[in-house]
This record gives sequence, structure tokens and C-alpha cells, in this order.
Amino acid sequence: MQKKNKPIGVFDSGLGGLTVVKTLFEQMPNEDIIYFGDTARVPYGSRSPETIRTYACQDVDFLLRYDVKAIVIACNTADSMARELIKEKYDLPVIGVVEPAAKKAVSLTENGKIGVIGTKATVNSAAYENAVKAIDPRVRVFSRACPLLVPLVENGRFRKDDRVVNIILEEYLEPLHREGVDALVLGCTHYPLLKEAVQCCMPGVKIICSGEASVDMLAEMLTENDLRSESTAEGEHRYFVSDDVKSFTENAESFLGRSLDGAVMTAQHFC
Amino acid sequence: MQKKNKPIGVFDSGLGGLTVVKTLFEQMPNEDIIYFGDTARVPYGSRSPETIRTYACQDVDFLLRYDVKAIVIACNTADSMARELIKEKYDLPVIGVVEPAAKKAVSLTENGKIGVIGTKATVNSAAYENAVKAIDPRVRVFSRACPLLVPLVENGRFRKDDRVVNIILEEYLEPLHREGVDALVLGCTHYPLLKEAVQCCMPGVKIICSGEASVDMLAEMLTENDLRSESTAEGEHRYFVSDDVKSFTENAESFLGRSLDGAVMTAQHFC
Repeated sequence: MQKKNKPIGVFDSGLGGLTVVKTLFEQMPNEDIIYFGDTARVPYGSRSPETIRTYACQDVDFLLRYDVKAIVIACNTADSMARELIKEKYDLPVIGVVEPAAKKAVSLTENGKIGVIGTKATVNSAAYENAVKAIDPRVRVFSRACPLLVPLVENGRFRKDDRVVNIILEEYLEPLHREGVDALVLGCTHYPLLKEAVQCCMPGVKIICSGEASVDMLAEMLTENDLRSESTAEGEHRYFVSDDVKSFTENAESFLGRSLDGAVMTAQHFC
Repeated sequence: MQKKNKPIGVFDSGLGGLTVVKTLFEQMPNEDIIYFGDTARVPYGSRSPETIRTYACQDVDFLLRYDVKAIVIACNTADSMARELIKEKYDLPVIGVVEPAAKKAVSLTENGKIGVIGTKATVNSAAYENAVKAIDPRVRVFSRACPLLVPLVENGRFRKDDRVVNIILEEYLEPLHREGVDALVLGCTHYPLLKEAVQCCMPGVKIICSGEASVDMLAEMLTENDLRSESTAEGEHRYFVSDDVKSFTENAESFLGRSLDGAVMTAQHFC
């Protein structure tokens, strides 16, 4: 098989990366995708840098078994902590979520103040601050760790009329609001489900979903490297998880917006 | 060294088991303790039975390296899912948290209605229902999975004046309140920190912390088997974690009520 017709490998700590896959479907429907969600060890966002790096490399090793042509790190935590290591260690194109979202935020801000919300690990890494600085050193980044958002979303609580979601979001977003940010990066691939609720707390602020920005950059990169699939048929999508298939499949629909139709398998002997 | 003077091994998915260790200190101050917290893979409560069993056996294998005389499964999820397997597989006394708490709840209920709150895995296992039935088949158990309580506690939100804690507790406890339970088991070793907040939502209801009941049963078991330490000095306590030491040590104090004083180490090459 020609390299360009090989699948794209996407990984995340669990479900969140499916929000990236959803955009991938829409923008590149003919690409085959291998997705890996490390559901036996989710969440990554509260773990140490060393552990996140170890897990991220194991995730890439798993995807490489399927001879993928490129890797999408569909997890802000793994991207913040492990992208440099992955780029050094593996000889294939790697796209993360932080750099594309930072680029988009810089292009959208008018007052030069960008807010970023994410996991503890993402915020502590200062990955967004560094990415923004590399693009435009005059733009300021205000970031906030939001450790309760992933558990809330994973428990189906993300709607804008959920009282708990609103209280927690107000708490987390208040300092960013006070700083007057006019663009806000949802710096975790779980957060697109909270977009409406976040928008209610931050009216008028431009909201950037890190996954969407990432797919735009992936499309460019594949085109530049002559790696776009030549297939005209709908791409084949396979999903692997390190924990059991059932609970992943049940929750996947709210992230992906479609049924997974028996396409989920266990990543046996994963770790 | 005589078997009776060897340490007691205690494990949990993370921090929660320290609430058991706290009671162990108070009741058996001369015992040496080896604690293992699987912080690189916490939480267990939302994982599949197979994954929880695999992790629990790896935790026991780790403790056995330190030649422990008995094992305390200080995690309701692991106890519910893996106790039978551990008892079959390993030749040493094993005490869990479910059976002792069930026994205590049965002795305290006057109207024969016990409530149990715990993780999804604990509640789905029906471990409390089975344990109570074995003691007194007339007593009814009403259980409720509370998946957001562990993330709340781990983020330092457990005080009775926390608005989010109160809203979430009211939601979770309302059905148990309606059933008229007069005893409530905090069926997760994270929950003792929520005891005051829970008591405010359920005034007059007797609250059982699973860890405390477990230490009572451990003391009996050690005495019966002539395994109580003969030492008169304060016991030595060592803590191992699978993720980094720093964040565990920072949070441990609220669970343990004392400083860990450099007694925490990384469980190297754990998995």
C-alpha cells in the first residue's frame, strides 16, 4: 500500500480525543483512522510529567503496530508534556493540539489577551504560553487549571442548564473574565462538550476548540507532504481502548455525535 | 524476624486508603505498615472488573516484596471486585473494607434499611448487598453510585459549607433519604473526609466509615492468629506510590491528619 493511503493514528487518554476525530471525519472523510484511548489509565491531567511521557510513548508504540502515516496527539496534556519527546523518538509526522490552537487564538484576539483552560498538567507545563510567545511575544496568556471539568464531562454533566457545571465554570473562569481576555482556548479535548456553557459565562469571547484547529493543521501538513489519501470511499475507522469496550462505546456517542457500530476493540496486552 | 513482627501491607488506588491507615495508627500504634497507593492509575472506581482485578493483584504482588504478614485492601472498589481472587491466589490473611462495614451497619440499623454510597464499580458489584444478606437476609440495602465524590475530595472539596459538595450530595443522597435508611455506609475510603457534609444532608442517620470497621476486624484477626506485633516502640510506616511522590505527599495530610515526613517513596518499575 502506498504510504499516503495508510491510516492516521490518533490517541488520547480516553474519550476526549473523539472530539478531534469528529472534526477529522467532517474535513477529511476519506482518511482511514486508528484511534487509541487509554481508558485503563485515564485521566492523564493530574499525573506527573514522567508518567505522562511514559504513557504517551506507549500510546504511540501501540498506534505504530497499525502502520500509521501520521500521529495526532489528541490530548492537550500528552501534547504539552510529551510532544518534543515523541517528535525526537519517532520518524513520522506528528501534530498536536496546543500549537494549532495557540495559532488560531493569536489570529483571533484583538486586545492581545488570551485565556486558556486545561488540566493541571497542561497549565503547569506552560505549553500554551510558550506556543503563543513563539508566534507573537506581545500577546499575553492567562491560564487556569480546571481539574473538575473532565470528571464532570465524563459523567455526562456539560449542559448549560446544569447548576453544578455553572457554579464550577464561574469559579474557574472568573479570573480570566476579570483579566479581560477576548479569546479563550478550550485546552482539553473534553471541553468542546462544555462550549455552550462556557460561552454563557463568557459572552462575546471567541472560543477556540483545540481539536478543530489541530485538524486544519493536519490537513495542511498531509497535503504538503503528499500524504492525503487517494481513496474516494468513506474512510475506515477503528477504535482501540485499554479498558473494556462497553463503557467506552456507551459514552463515545456524546463525543463523536454518531454511533460506533461495533468498531471498538480492546487493545490486548497493551501495557 | 518472627512473623508477628513483620509489617501489615495496606493498599489503595491512591490516597483514600490513608483514612484506614489513620485508624490503624490510633488502634495499633506499634504495628509497622507498608502502604501502597497506585497513584499512576487512580481512580479504580470507573474501570472494568477485569482491569480492577489485574491492578489489585499487581498491588498485592508489590506489597509481598516487603514480606508483609497480612493484607488490608483499603479500597472498596478493589475489595468488591478482587477480594475472592486475592484470597484464592495468596496464602496470607486478607482483610477488606466491605465485610466489616456491612457487619457494623447491620448491628446499627434499627429499621433494617441500610444505605450505601460508593464508586460505580463497588455499587455494580453488589458486594454490600451480598455481605449484608449473608449476615441478616431481612436487612435491605439501598445503594447509590457517586462518581463525582472522589474527584471532589481529591481536589480538596469536601467541607460542609462547599456549595458544590452540598448540591452533589443532595442529588446522590436524596433517593436513600426517601427510602428512609437509618444507617449509611461511606463505601469508599475517600468519603470519610465528607462525613460532616453527609451528616448535614442526612441528620440522625448513623454513618459508618468503612475503614474504621475494617481496622476493628483486622485487630481481632491478628489477635486470633497470634500475629500482633510484640514491639513496644512506635511502628515504622513506609509509603510507596506508582506516580510521583510530591503530589501524593502534599495531599496526604488531609487524609492522614499528620505529616508524612519523607516516608514516601516511588514504587519503581511497578508496572
